[in-house]
Amino acid sequence: MNSIEWNGQALILLDQTKLPVSEEYIHCTDWRQVAEAIKMLRVRGAPAIGVAAGYALVLAAREAAAQGDRDEQFTAFFEFANTLKATRPTAINLAWAVERVCTLVRTCIENNGNDGADNHAVYLADCLDRIEAEAIAINEEDLALNRAMAKAGARIFEGRRGLRILTHCNAGALATAGIGTALGVIRELHANGQLSMVYADETRPLLQGARLTTFELHQDGIPVTLLTDNMAAYAMQQGLIDAVIVGADRITTEGDVANKIGTYGVAVLAKAHGIPFYVAAPYSTFDFTLASGKDIPIEIRDSREVTHFQGCQTAPDGVPVLNPAFDVTPHEYVSAIITEAGVLYPDYTKSIARLHKEVQER
Amino acid sequence: MNSIEWNGQALILLDQTKLPVSEEYIHCTDWRQVAEAIKMLRVRGAPAIGVAAGYALVLAAREAAAQGDRDEQFTAFFEFANTLKATRPTAINLAWAVERVCTLVRTCIENNGNDGADNHAVYLADCLDRIEAEAIAINEEDLALNRAMAKAGARIFEGRRGLRILTHCNAGALATAGIGTALGVIRELHANGQLSMVYADETRPLLQGARLTTFELHQDGIPVTLLTDNMAAYAMQQGLIDAVIVGADRITTEGDVANKIGTYGVAVLAKAHGIPFYVAAPYSTFDFTLASGKDIPIEIRDSREVTHFQGCQTAPDGVPVLNPAFDVTPHEYVSAIITEAGVLYPDYTKSIARLHKEVQER
Repeated sequence: MNSIEWNGQALILLDQTKLPVSEEYIHCTDWRQVAEAIKMLRVRGAPAIGVAAGYALVLAAREAAAQGDRDEQFTAFFEFANTLKATRPTAINLAWAVERVCTLVRTCIENNGNDGADNHAVYLADCLDRIEAEAIAINEEDLALNRAMAKAGARIFEGRRGLRILTHCNAGALATAGIGTALGVIRELHANGQLSMVYADETRPLLQGARLTTFELHQDGIPVTLLTDNMAAYAMQQGLIDAVIVGADRITTEGDVANKIGTYGVAVLAKAHGIPFYVAAPYSTFDFTLASGKDIPIEIRDSREVTHFQGCQTAPDGVPVLNPAFDVTPHEYVSAIITEAGVLYPDYTKSIARLHKEVQER
Repeated sequence: MNSIEWNGQALILLDQTKLPVSEEYIHCTDWRQVAEAIKMLRVRGAPAIGVAAGYALVLAAREAAAQGDRDEQFTAFFEFANTLKATRPTAINLAWAVERVCTLVRTCIENNGNDGADNHAVYLADCLDRIEAEAIAINEEDLALNRAMAKAGARIFEGRRGLRILTHCNAGALATAGIGTALGVIRELHANGQLSMVYADETRPLLQGARLTTFELHQDGIPVTLLTDNMAAYAMQQGLIDAVIVGADRITTEGDVANKIGTYGVAVLAKAHGIPFYVAAPYSTFDFTLASGKDIPIEIRDSREVTHFQGCQTAPDGVPVLNPAFDVTPHEYVSAIITEAGVLYPDYTKSIARLHKEVQER
């Protein structure tokens, strides 16, 4: 299953809101369709949003390049990029991907377009090939990152067999362009014959665990058991869980982790039961401008997500609702962070700074 | 709203599986309809099940009294009672109510029926009036118990205002014949002007919090905010919760508490955040035959409860599911137990034994 595919003209997205009941694809030929798909969680998962945003900017650049004069084109493009970036506030990968493409465009302006010849004024049209190449690079890098994270994560469990792993939300193939972050590690453990069972929290309100994680693991023949979020503590108490592995939407320089609502509770419960809690996330998930998780903006979503499910009403009309889409797990609950450049352990301030330095020096 | 009503001929139950979308009542003229309603959670909540079981036995006794000879009648009645008792295994109140009525019938046999005259063989028909009176007594006692628990529980919070209370599942008017156990305390705090907000966990899989707790509090004008179960940790982290109050389905002599799945997780999270965790339950919820919560039978329910909601599929076909209906919170997580005879504090082995002795001596 390919949840994100670029055919040169359109971005084809698997509509994840329709899973597991039906597999429907959306053909986006306008960046606004991609923005809407991100907003409505038709494409979701921090890395996948980043990849989709890259391609959305190809569509945005093509549209902007066809209108007005040179300055108007660039202004329109950067406006589109800003609108796209504001679609969802918590996952840093969206901002990271948009910023990466915008930096490319700025460089392109300075370097006189696709061909590098310095004897003409650069139009946005001169940058289009390089924008598309950058979007494809973000996509292909994500594939490689997922594989590297999977290998790095599996090394934590070297020599162990029969592992029972709890995961929350969906940090899998559907959340990335590749095999997934947390589920990438889980797939590697399965391939190594080390995995006995994945326990998938259903992940209310939008049920990414029930709808997506069980769907993709089941399709791949990986043993998975579904449980409601409030059963995770019971499963830990019964000795059914050896480790927790989750993805992340943003990680600060101190190692605080924003991820799908409910992650923090799982982390506290894991600590109380002496179960290690691992986060799998690529370099693009780190926000080097923030130290404390308290400063991460938390997206508050529509109350209807809690009071209704697929048209079925679950609560009386007019009842006030709390619906934060994410929470922040303070670093003291995080046993290790699995990245494509290896596994980071506390003290995170030091290990994350080292990662940052290594990547900057590449 | 009366969720349980006896009119002398039929037990009228509010079908709680239809709430909050519609208010439908079931007229039970056969004890099997009551058993089915208990099994299907049309009537639920440990005390309410006890009250419903009392009336079911009136119907069962009337049916048994109309068939066969004297011995066959009593045999049929006790068989009906055993079948009813086995409908749900975890909540002790069901077994307690059935046992209470059966004891009455045994006493009635020994004492020669309704009139106490000792010059005739007792038929089941001779006990019918006393069985009905006992069922009505269980019902009326529940009303009084709820009020006593509410007063006792509110005293814990004496002198405090602006309280924000988290509750899990529904331990309210819908779970009892009266104002509720946990929600009885909450109603009392509201009446005293001490309550600022109730946070109601939606309580997957069957959403008793979303469907029932918000429904009855909203109807009574008590401020309530709905959250998914996995948001409780977030609410605690954000400093939104002053105390947790829940009901119970069974409490052992050591103070271990069986209650709706998810309660244990809430208790662990409360402890991690320094938030007191209170259990409100009447004497009939205590199981004086069990010391450790590990020995409480946990009902495992159909996986469809997790994979479907009101006909909407939430997970792929064939995915294995964990669906325990209850969990056990070890006594070390319980700050106090609110009963009709006052508030019990640790050491529970001692305080529960004292309660038992007091009630026995009455």
